[in-house]
Order: sequence, then structure tokens, then C-alpha cells
Amino acid sequence: MELWCRACRRKYGINEPIWRCGCGSPLDVHIDSQFPRDRIVKRRPNLWRYREALPLEDEVRVVSFDEGFTPLIFRNFRGFRVAFKLEYLFPTGSFKDRGASLLVSKVRELGIQEVVEDSSGNAAAAIAAYCAASGITCHIYVPETASSSKLTQIRMYGARLVKVPGSRQDTARAAFEAAEKSYYASHYWNPFFFQGTKTFAFEVWEQLGFRVPHNLIIPVGHGTLLLGAHFGFQELKASGMVKETPRIFAVQSENCCPLFRVFHEGLTYLPQIAKKESLAEGIGISQPLRWKQILEAVKSSQGTFLKVSEEEIVSSLRELSHQGFFLEPTSAVAPAAL
Amino acid sequence: MELWCRACRRKYGINEPIWRCGCGSPLDVHIDSQFPRDRIVKRRPNLWRYREALPLEDEVRVVSFDEGFTPLIFRNFRGFRVAFKLEYLFPTGSFKDRGASLLVSKVRELGIQEVVEDSSGNAAAAIAAYCAASGITCHIYVPETASSSKLTQIRMYGARLVKVPGSRQDTARAAFEAAEKSYYASHYWNPFFFQGTKTFAFEVWEQLGFRVPHNLIIPVGHGTLLLGAHFGFQELKASGMVKETPRIFAVQSENCCPLFRVFHEGLTYLPQIAKKESLAEGIGISQPLRWKQILEAVKSSQGTFLKVSEEEIVSSLRELSHQGFFLEPTSAVAPAAL
Repeated sequence: MELWCRACRRKYGINEPIWRCGCGSPLDVHIDSQFPRDRIVKRRPNLWRYREALPLEDEVRVVSFDEGFTPLIFRNFRGFRVAFKLEYLFPTGSFKDRGASLLVSKVRELGIQEVVEDSSGNAAAAIAAYCAASGITCHIYVPETASSSKLTQIRMYGARLVKVPGSRQDTARAAFEAAEKSYYASHYWNPFFFQGTKTFAFEVWEQLGFRVPHNLIIPVGHGTLLLGAHFGFQELKASGMVKETPRIFAVQSENCCPLFRVFHEGLTYLPQIAKKESLAEGIGISQPLRWKQILEAVKSSQGTFLKVSEEEIVSSLRELSHQGFFLEPTSAVAPAAL
Repeated sequence: MELWCRACRRKYGINEPIWRCGCGSPLDVHIDSQFPRDRIVKRRPNLWRYREALPLEDEVRVVSFDEGFTPLIFRNFRGFRVAFKLEYLFPTGSFKDRGASLLVSKVRELGIQEVVEDSSGNAAAAIAAYCAASGITCHIYVPETASSSKLTQIRMYGARLVKVPGSRQDTARAAFEAAEKSYYASHYWNPFFFQGTKTFAFEVWEQLGFRVPHNLIIPVGHGTLLLGAHFGFQELKASGMVKETPRIFAVQSENCCPLFRVFHEGLTYLPQIAKKESLAEGIGISQPLRWKQILEAVKSSQGTFLKVSEEEIVSSLRELSHQGFFLEPTSAVAPAAL
């Protein structure tokens, strides 16, 4: 079990209190995951049932609301038989709780008392909630102009809001600088966050009777869920649990689709894009930090990138509502691609 | 398995398409519930794992989003070690999905195509969602003045909103009259709704290692959860699964506490109360239909009624938020009584 840098190949101990490589690149966790099926099936239905695949020393400091093991239900949708994974059924309202539960548990194990995160949405709500549950001081950096029901939620948890003038990028920069003197509980920088989101793959595998699907259709912004799922399926393969991993169809909104462009235009750099407003605010990321890694994951799966228009998101949302799903628009993006 | 009337003792077949007794009183379901533990523990973690205790002919027409088996987590709160059951982690956002899943499944089994419900809150959202999922036409009666995010949700599901001028009671009357020619999928009238909410008790029992708690602290308005829990625990006792049932502490808001008054003032009637606004809108019920039944349930458990002020609800909400729980105020009512 160790931290490693994909860019310069340097390795670090799993318990070093760092969140990026000395070379400036993001880190990943390497772990020889085990999946003792007989024991797993007897445990409580939450993401901690896969504990032999999670990079904690022990379970003493786990911060949990019994999150995970979200429903996987089959529905007919646009002529397909589709398995929907209900990733909004989490204590704070989004799959970000997967990452927050693992990351904040690790933060406790490392003895860190104070963290920084920047987001005005689901990721910050998740980090704030798990910090609240464990008495860790949490500074959430948000753009001065941010205003949403999510901010109310973040404030209710007792997180310290730091309002930054300027753009979303200015906020990220301020958080990044603050994190140099603190610990960056970032949903896109911190390698432990992805160790939580990878449990998505384990659950799908177990819920399908210990098989993986042929295809995975998934929205992508920073890639917190996509990369998590990729890591998870790769670990299942590495440990001999499955022979194949799913083909990944990564979906972006037409109004903000840098990854789509890199893939289909064969770019070797991340283009500067003029980001337009989109209903899919959860994936409205014009400069995704881990873009190369996301591209690699999708390519190696024989998958592709798709984009959907605002109109397509609205129709998808409407069709899903009429089947009894009440979702935030970002959750309608993947079905919109069908 | 049959329907029966507590008031006049008349019995009806379980598949009669009625929702109240000829004498005008509400009906209940009588069922000899079985709890095959070995089989239960191997099933998916949703409320349908207790199928031998649910009054359906078979499972062919079950309408489910994999609802239920909500987390039961232990926390220190105000000096007590408390098990919190997270009854907001449901597809439509509240425990009402328990009732709606069972009731709408039964509606399909009875071959009913169209139902009526009145509520401007969680119950209507749940009924609307499950009707949407199963193609049943759903008419939701709401006061003309009602306006909330819940109404948006109800409308998104495709339910037909019927706005009624006048008071909340006028709305209930209009729905009741419409239901005479249709089927009343009411969360307080319909006996099958409570057959869904009773699974709360089964889950608590299983999650505590097949034991029941000594005390249950629960909010009460119409008693949809309280009576469900009561039925559930009674069935566990009747089937020999447990020897005792919990003492029930039923909590109301000071601003609307008719049941508290009946209990503590020893009244033999339901008083007309001047209902004041309360943060706890989910239990702001001045004329609970099943008040006698609720009183009996609490008395027979050796329990009592408690009331909490608006200030106490606010502090409870704040304390819970600071532990990472983001709740609607009604969910803070029970902890406020601690």
C-alpha cells in the first residue's frame, strides 16, 4: 500500500500527510485489494463492507453514516433495459459521500485537525458533513458570488466559509495556497477521495451477482466518480474477481466539454474553452486537473466521450421524473446520452 | 389475511377494493406475519426482504426503488448513546416511500388505474412517484394556497394537481369526496400504507441483531410512522420473534399537540385546537383521524406523549447539523425531546 505519482513515478508511504507529489502532480494510491466474498456478503450494506480494499490501517477512526450500497434498479428507458445506480441516496445528497467518508476517516488516522476544500456544491457539503461528524475543522473556499441551497447546507454543518473575490479559478487558487499550510481535502486533488468513490464499482459488481456490466455510462467533470469507478473495476480485475472491465461512455454537457474535445479532436493539451451556463452544474468543469488520467481510463476501456445539449438534459430529466425519479439535472446527463 | 374494522369488528377480504369500513371508520390489515430469518438475511437490503409479513398475493406487481433498510447509526447526543434511524434516505426523500411502495403495489394487484391523495408534502410526493413508476393516474389535492418545493416535485412526477380553495380541511373533504368514486391512496386512511411503514420496526429489529430497543422516540402527526412501528413490533411479538416491544415516546410540537393534550388531560374526545405555525410542518396535524388508535398504541407500550417548543426544535436541528445531519425540521423533533 503506497502513494505514487503517475507523472514522475515517485513513491511515498501511505501515511505521509501529503496530498500531491513533490513534482507538483496529483498522487494516486496503490493497494493490493482483496475481496473475500463470503465475508463481504455478511456485512452491513454500506461501502465499508469492502474494507480489505480500502487504504486504512484499521477501522477505529472510520467516520460513517452507513453510506453506500445504493440501489441498483432495472428500468426500461428509451428502448433499453438499463440498470440505474441511485447515487443520490446518500446522507448529504450525492455520491461525494463515498469520497468524503474515506478521506475524512484517513484524515483522522493521520491525526490532521484542520482541512481545506473548495467547491460550492456537493463535494463541499460532503466534506463539511464528515468533518462535522468527526470534530475536524473545515474551511470551505467559495466564490464570493456563490449562492445556493448547498451553501446553506455547508454552513449548517458548521464549516467555515471563506468567500473569495473573482472567478472560480481564483477560489481554487486561494484554496490551493491555504492548503500548502494545511491539508487539502480536495475531491479532485486528494488521492484518498478516489479510494472512496471506487466503491461504486465494487457495489455494481456485487449487485449484479459478482459480475461487471458490459457498458458504463457516466457523467464526467473532474472525474471523481469516473476515475473512482475505473480504479475499482481495475482492482477487481487485478485481484482475479473479474476478467473484463466495462466499456466507459463518458458524458459531458455540450456547454462545457473539454474532455470530449480532447478525445475527438485528438488534442495533446487541454483547450481553453468558453464555458457556457449549463443545467448540469455538477460537471461544469472547464479545467479538469486529472484530464490525462480520465482520457487514459476511457481509451483503455475501448470507450468514448459523448456530449448532450441542454435540451437533451431537460428531456431526459422529464422522462426520468415521469418514471418516479426526482433528480438534480446533472444526474439526467448520463441517461440523456441513451 | 384480511381487512378489519377496529370500531365495529366487521371483516373484509384482503382483496376488496375498499379503503374504509361500511360503518365509516378506518380499516386495518390483519396478517399472520412470518419472519424466516435465514432467508431474510440473504435478500437485498430493502423493505421487501420481509415479504412474508407483507399483504401481497405475490411479487409480480411490486413497485420498488429498492427503498428501505435505511441506516441505523449510533451517536452520542446530549449525554445519551442514541441509535438514529435515517428515515430521510429514501428515493423521494422521506419514510413515506415505505407506505407508498406497499400501497401502490397493492393498488396494481387490485387492478386499480386511478387514485386520489391529499397532501402538499412528503406523502403526496411519495404516492406521486410510485404511481409514476407504475403508470397509475394520480390526483393530488392541495390547498389553493399551497406553495413549496414539494409541489414542484409532485408536479415533476406527472401527478395531476387539484387546487382546492379554503382550508386544509376543505382540501381533505374534496379529496375524500373524489375518493368515493375512485380509490383513496391516503397515507392516513388507507390500511395498506401502514403495512409499508411497519417495516420500520422489522429493520430496527434486524439491525440491532434481532432485538428491539427498550425505548422508541418518534414524532407523531397522523401517526403514519408511529402506528406502522407499533404494528410491526406487535407482529414480531405475535410471531414469537421477540418477547417485549419498545416503550413509545411520542413527540409533538407545542404549537400543534392535540394528542399530547388528550393523553395528559385525560380527554375522551379530540379537542379543537388553535393550530399555530410550526417549523415541524410534517406533523402539524390538528385532527389526526386515527387518534384513538395512536393513544392506545402509546398507552399499551407504557409510553407517554411529549411536546417540544419551536426553540427546542431549532436547537436540536442545530446540534444535529453540527454532527453532520442535514434534516428537515420535523426530523429534529424526536431528538429535541431528549
